[in-house]
Amino acid sequence: MDELLPGMLHLARDGGETLTRQLTDQLRGLITGGHLAPGQRLPSSRQLAKSLALSRNTVTFAIEQLAAEGYLSSSAGRRPIVVEGLSLDRRKALPRSNRAGGGRIELSSWARSLQRANWPPVHDGRPRPFQPGLADEREFPHDAWSCCLRRAARNAPLRRDRPINHPPLQEALLRHLVVHRGIKATPGQILIVPTAQAGLTLVANALLERGDHAWIESPGYGGANVALAAAGATVSAIPLDAQGMAIAAPEDTPRLIFVTPSHQYPTGRLMPIGRRLELLRYAEAASACIIEDDYDGEFHYEARPVAALQGLAPSPRVFYLGTFSKATYADIRFGYVVVPEAHIETFERAQRHMGMLTSITMQDALAEFITSGAYLGHIRRMTRLYKGRRDRMLQALAAEAGDRLAIEVPAGGMQLLARCHPHTDDQKLSARLDEAGVVSRPLSSMLYHRSGEQGLFLGFAAWNEKEIDQAARILGRIVR
Amino acid sequence: MDELLPGMLHLARDGGETLTRQLTDQLRGLITGGHLAPGQRLPSSRQLAKSLALSRNTVTFAIEQLAAEGYLSSSAGRRPIVVEGLSLDRRKALPRSNRAGGGRIELSSWARSLQRANWPPVHDGRPRPFQPGLADEREFPHDAWSCCLRRAARNAPLRRDRPINHPPLQEALLRHLVVHRGIKATPGQILIVPTAQAGLTLVANALLERGDHAWIESPGYGGANVALAAAGATVSAIPLDAQGMAIAAPEDTPRLIFVTPSHQYPTGRLMPIGRRLELLRYAEAASACIIEDDYDGEFHYEARPVAALQGLAPSPRVFYLGTFSKATYADIRFGYVVVPEAHIETFERAQRHMGMLTSITMQDALAEFITSGAYLGHIRRMTRLYKGRRDRMLQALAAEAGDRLAIEVPAGGMQLLARCHPHTDDQKLSARLDEAGVVSRPLSSMLYHRSGEQGLFLGFAAWNEKEIDQAARILGRIVR
Repeated sequence: MDELLPGMLHLARDGGETLTRQLTDQLRGLITGGHLAPGQRLPSSRQLAKSLALSRNTVTFAIEQLAAEGYLSSSAGRRPIVVEGLSLDRRKALPRSNRAGGGRIELSSWARSLQRANWPPVHDGRPRPFQPGLADEREFPHDAWSCCLRRAARNAPLRRDRPINHPPLQEALLRHLVVHRGIKATPGQILIVPTAQAGLTLVANALLERGDHAWIESPGYGGANVALAAAGATVSAIPLDAQGMAIAAPEDTPRLIFVTPSHQYPTGRLMPIGRRLELLRYAEAASACIIEDDYDGEFHYEARPVAALQGLAPSPRVFYLGTFSKATYADIRFGYVVVPEAHIETFERAQRHMGMLTSITMQDALAEFITSGAYLGHIRRMTRLYKGRRDRMLQALAAEAGDRLAIEVPAGGMQLLARCHPHTDDQKLSARLDEAGVVSRPLSSMLYHRSGEQGLFLGFAAWNEKEIDQAARILGRIVR
Repeated sequence: MDELLPGMLHLARDGGETLTRQLTDQLRGLITGGHLAPGQRLPSSRQLAKSLALSRNTVTFAIEQLAAEGYLSSSAGRRPIVVEGLSLDRRKALPRSNRAGGGRIELSSWARSLQRANWPPVHDGRPRPFQPGLADEREFPHDAWSCCLRRAARNAPLRRDRPINHPPLQEALLRHLVVHRGIKATPGQILIVPTAQAGLTLVANALLERGDHAWIESPGYGGANVALAAAGATVSAIPLDAQGMAIAAPEDTPRLIFVTPSHQYPTGRLMPIGRRLELLRYAEAASACIIEDDYDGEFHYEARPVAALQGLAPSPRVFYLGTFSKATYADIRFGYVVVPEAHIETFERAQRHMGMLTSITMQDALAEFITSGAYLGHIRRMTRLYKGRRDRMLQALAAEAGDRLAIEVPAGGMQLLARCHPHTDDQKLSARLDEAGVVSRPLSSMLYHRSGEQGLFLGFAAWNEKEIDQAARILGRIVR
């Protein structure tokens, strides 16, 4: 052996990998490959160095490394021995019975259910008209934002005291929410989370026990359905009437109600104050909590928005959920949750336990973006722009498919619902549109109760008038 | 009433709020306050404009806004009526029985358990020596990083096609992990998550069913304990021997095993190759999965690190978990998980369902930071620096408290474990140190099996030699 080993090693002296590294890797390979038998003694480092024409140091380093890794056992003055049981040859190392399984692993029932979930719809490639849920990123002030980011990153070394939710962002955001959304809170109540969906997951897990009942709207937001179900809830879908979620005498009292009162998702309906108060009274009586998802509550075209449920509620049972993805641009991703003051500490612990923390540098950049006025300026400019696009979209759809689509004029937001004749198959229609380059989301995929409603959910905010007209023509051709 | 209403309104003409906004807000307040009774008719907008000396338009806008919000019902040519049931006066609006509860909400058993959890330890204020888990942020190249961030933000408009895990970061990170950690994977197997703890939550939920058994090390990482338990597992704590987790004949076969083979948390022990293979063989036989947490696997001081379990495993059942928080600086927060190739799609869906997505701008900045060489350069510089600090810490502790503390020399990482005499109360000792300005974590709070072991977990990486000497003197004084 002492004579064979040098011949099994092939060291390149081309200045690539160091010789120590090559020697270590090759010796390790010979051991795991079974070419050096367990219990075998290696030559001494002096011998090995000589036969390989290496420095003694090189060999000693390699031997020490392999001893540290556990491949060799060596003691002072003695030649190193190959440790037992290190061959990775599967035929020897593993019990026969397991090879048959091909190492398949079993996923949890939740993970298996993901393959069947129809949420979220994944659109590959570049966004195309009329994919819903998108703001126009071309209009976002990327330069102003990148300056905020750079400044925040440069100031990072000065911030060694770092609560997980950055007070300057909490304060800036709260001022905005108080004035524009009627939120009543202290800054500490605002948690900054990686995404609005993470906020939903957090609140659902903190409130729901396995088997609890929870309500969502139907048609409604699939992300809420999956988050409440994942937290163990039995989810009931409550149909809408003209004012939004139609609170009826329910079979099961909910512990948690998910609503989108600002512009109902996907119909765009504004829940009027009367229904808001009715919902709050119902929640009080049922001791239920409410998640108010104000996902695109910034963009109102008809009148000023109705005050948020959170600010109207007589007791702190409303969790207000928002996102920067719509009012800034999608990639910022951050969401926020306004939690009741009495539970701030518990929710901050929950954030840590689930790992739903975000970079303070990003939070600081957002704080500056808001306090500098860039945030509100952008929202105002986009509100005008998106209103124009909504109107253009209404016009174009009326011209191209007015007889086939009944469009609910949304009071705000970035998308609209175009209802089709009940005999339509909106899934097929949506698939045909997709082939022609127009993205939509079929209404039937957003219905969580039995209903024959058919329609298309279409985004208008991210496309200019020319793009809207072109896509509407394609849509009209296929719908007719 | 027609005559009273103008007297109830007080409009300021000082150029602050617009008159429309003042009028809207005040009318809304009168309705919700019960000063305008349900069913009551308001004066016509013409009359109101006249008596308030406002333009007709101002009044019309306010009425339309309140009608849109649902406070007033108005029809063409008729005077608007106050809608029923809008008073927010709690005494009237809410059922008596609920006022008694004070609006308290009930949290889930998970959320209630958070208040009792001893993880994570929260340190208020600026970090102090020897708080474990911290890298030295003063040494981080903040300028290079802020340039990467700004460039990535500026390039954002060009990136409209955005998979949730950014391929350039996956590729750059994989190259690093293959060379330095022995990972075997394709780039698509790497998921970028908001934090390593989020990655742990994600994997635990995708693998564990309620009642499944899971193993952690003891002493071990509290974050794993809470994540596995939150996912429904019955967690067993497996004591360590000199090689790490001591795989014994267990009562219950685990479905998931959490280990920190690189430097065991908190002992800093390196799991040698023999134990690694034993663990892999056990997992194969038991059809168990492994989460390999390589949280500070970048910093090795004695020899090159042992190859990761992930690369050694004969079948894809190891989830490799890493973080940028230790190798860059804590605020970047992002973690990553290498998942089996067969399950990429399921895990990406799981990321979306739980909202564990991160900004592509940040991911792109990290990709550039790695490919530019700044990442590896920083790791190499820090490895030299931290090794020096480890040695200084060993020296200082030996000099100040050598007779009271038995220190395990960690092969790498950023902290060490100093064992105390079994009669010590390490919780009390840690509290006394904290009062004196020295932060530690008592070993007993990291033990998950019955054991009388006592000790202090101390970080050395984030402090310079002077700070180490000073804090060691304080520690020595209190320990003696």
